[in-house]
Amino acid sequence: MAGVYEGQPKSEGWWDNMIGPGKPVDTHKFFVIGVNNLGSCFGSTGPMHANPDTGEVYGSRFPVVTVEDWVNAQARLLDRLGIRQLSVVLGGSLGGMQALSWTLQHPERARHAVVVASAPNLNAENIAFNEVARRAIVTDPDFHGGDFYAHGVIPKRGLRIARMIGHITYLSDDVMNEKFGRVLREGLDLKYSTQDIEFQIESYLRYQGEKFSDYFDANTYLLITRALDYFDPARQYGGNLTLALAKAQARFLLVSFTTDWRFSPKRSREIVKGLLDNRRDVSYAEIDAPHGHDAFLLDDPRYMSLMASYFDNAAKEFSA
Amino acid sequence: MAGVYEGQPKSEGWWDNMIGPGKPVDTHKFFVIGVNNLGSCFGSTGPMHANPDTGEVYGSRFPVVTVEDWVNAQARLLDRLGIRQLSVVLGGSLGGMQALSWTLQHPERARHAVVVASAPNLNAENIAFNEVARRAIVTDPDFHGGDFYAHGVIPKRGLRIARMIGHITYLSDDVMNEKFGRVLREGLDLKYSTQDIEFQIESYLRYQGEKFSDYFDANTYLLITRALDYFDPARQYGGNLTLALAKAQARFLLVSFTTDWRFSPKRSREIVKGLLDNRRDVSYAEIDAPHGHDAFLLDDPRYMSLMASYFDNAAKEFSA
Repeated sequence: MAGVYEGQPKSEGWWDNMIGPGKPVDTHKFFVIGVNNLGSCFGSTGPMHANPDTGEVYGSRFPVVTVEDWVNAQARLLDRLGIRQLSVVLGGSLGGMQALSWTLQHPERARHAVVVASAPNLNAENIAFNEVARRAIVTDPDFHGGDFYAHGVIPKRGLRIARMIGHITYLSDDVMNEKFGRVLREGLDLKYSTQDIEFQIESYLRYQGEKFSDYFDANTYLLITRALDYFDPARQYGGNLTLALAKAQARFLLVSFTTDWRFSPKRSREIVKGLLDNRRDVSYAEIDAPHGHDAFLLDDPRYMSLMASYFDNAAKEFSA
Repeated sequence: MAGVYEGQPKSEGWWDNMIGPGKPVDTHKFFVIGVNNLGSCFGSTGPMHANPDTGEVYGSRFPVVTVEDWVNAQARLLDRLGIRQLSVVLGGSLGGMQALSWTLQHPERARHAVVVASAPNLNAENIAFNEVARRAIVTDPDFHGGDFYAHGVIPKRGLRIARMIGHITYLSDDVMNEKFGRVLREGLDLKYSTQDIEFQIESYLRYQGEKFSDYFDANTYLLITRALDYFDPARQYGGNLTLALAKAQARFLLVSFTTDWRFSPKRSREIVKGLLDNRRDVSYAEIDAPHGHDAFLLDDPRYMSLMASYFDNAAKEFSA
């Protein structure tokens, strides 16, 4: 999550700008635990691994996991580590859903929850984008019902399409216009072709899709998008988020970004309202940032200084 | 475009609510000409037809066509019909681009231009969505480089994905939440499956994708999205839309819809500004409608009455 592997200067963790010595989540003050999700292709047991009971690769038989499952698995890890209570649970996007879920499933085990660029559930449009990405993967002839490992192939066509859709939704309209606009990839003359690349945005998306299809597991993609779709703590309360959040005891920081249309500020404000209805201690910041959903991974100075202050205050509680 | 075929009551034209006796574009007052685009799969010569020079199906060899090509083809049709000047050129979305292009390529041949839910060019995000849809089609093994006709197959997987993406972008976030929300397709219990349909929105998208793949030609899809990408009358004026619109002589009505994020009001206002910079006669209406881009095909009463008034006034000019 942070830092680099020895001798590999380009191996920075994915949240290295946030976590480390002297960074907003300062590792001089906090012992940071970052847990890879069960089912992922980055370390934890996933669909590409063999089921120890049968010796066969899980493939399509890997169980569908939920945000709640992940949080419970993380709680069991804490049990094993002998940690009774976390100072802060922190997450962005799907990670924000996990942070929120922590405060509901294990209310006494997190003093603070920092929920960044997240939502109390996905809306129809987000489920729709996930579904298109899944269909692209599942209908790729190389998917083989999820058991492509045995066939020695990878459903790259589907993964590329899934990632291209993802990238469009991570960026804001404005930042796309600024970064790419209508600039052609080569020179000033149009080629008049339906299949060749004309615009830089096409080149960017194809590159991102290609890169992704080289390292991401197709079954993991399905599992993760489904976990996003399913997350909805208000569901068992007839859609009443205020009732669902009554269990939470943590103090909260909610952060959203103005141009994030995937997890819009409106969705964070729903969580804020639900917590305030329960008279919980909530801070909320809506950061005016141009980068869309991606902003939560970037170095916006106001975002960084807000996070640094919040964590600094949280650290004072236990050092006092 | 309007009316039904005899004995086929369900064969309404795609703009039947707008055009017909007593409708906003009243066929008691106007002689309406609707031209299918060259390259389309709904009547005009397209990639699925045989090239008369070679006797072979065009397939991937069908020429890439532009909005300007379509407008010039329409002008030649008018020559053949002996029509010197149109009272009004009308179009929505890609059709709006054609209406705008008419006023630039044949300024003396259109007295009015009604440009609905359109834009002076596509922005990066729109090109991006088109490119993902094209990649889904082109990388479908059944596409065969565009010559699938000879193989007796149809790249249905790609067409389905393309249409699903399209449908997401035609609707607004709000209307999707209202129509589908997070409602499950069957009962109240989740199935916990990555491939089965859980939510109604998934069912809707799959149905739309399936239907589309049964009747739409894959090469036509590529051609039409490319014509959208390429349209940019300001391009030869260094991006200066005001200069590009100096040639226009028509009087204009521009219409946009507040929740249309594919062709947003902002883009229509760019056209309005460019025309006003040239002291052209422009009316502009931004209709507060919830339905996103789809709104231009629906029966919003304010939209309908606005169109009726505009066409009614235009009719008075020649009946006076």
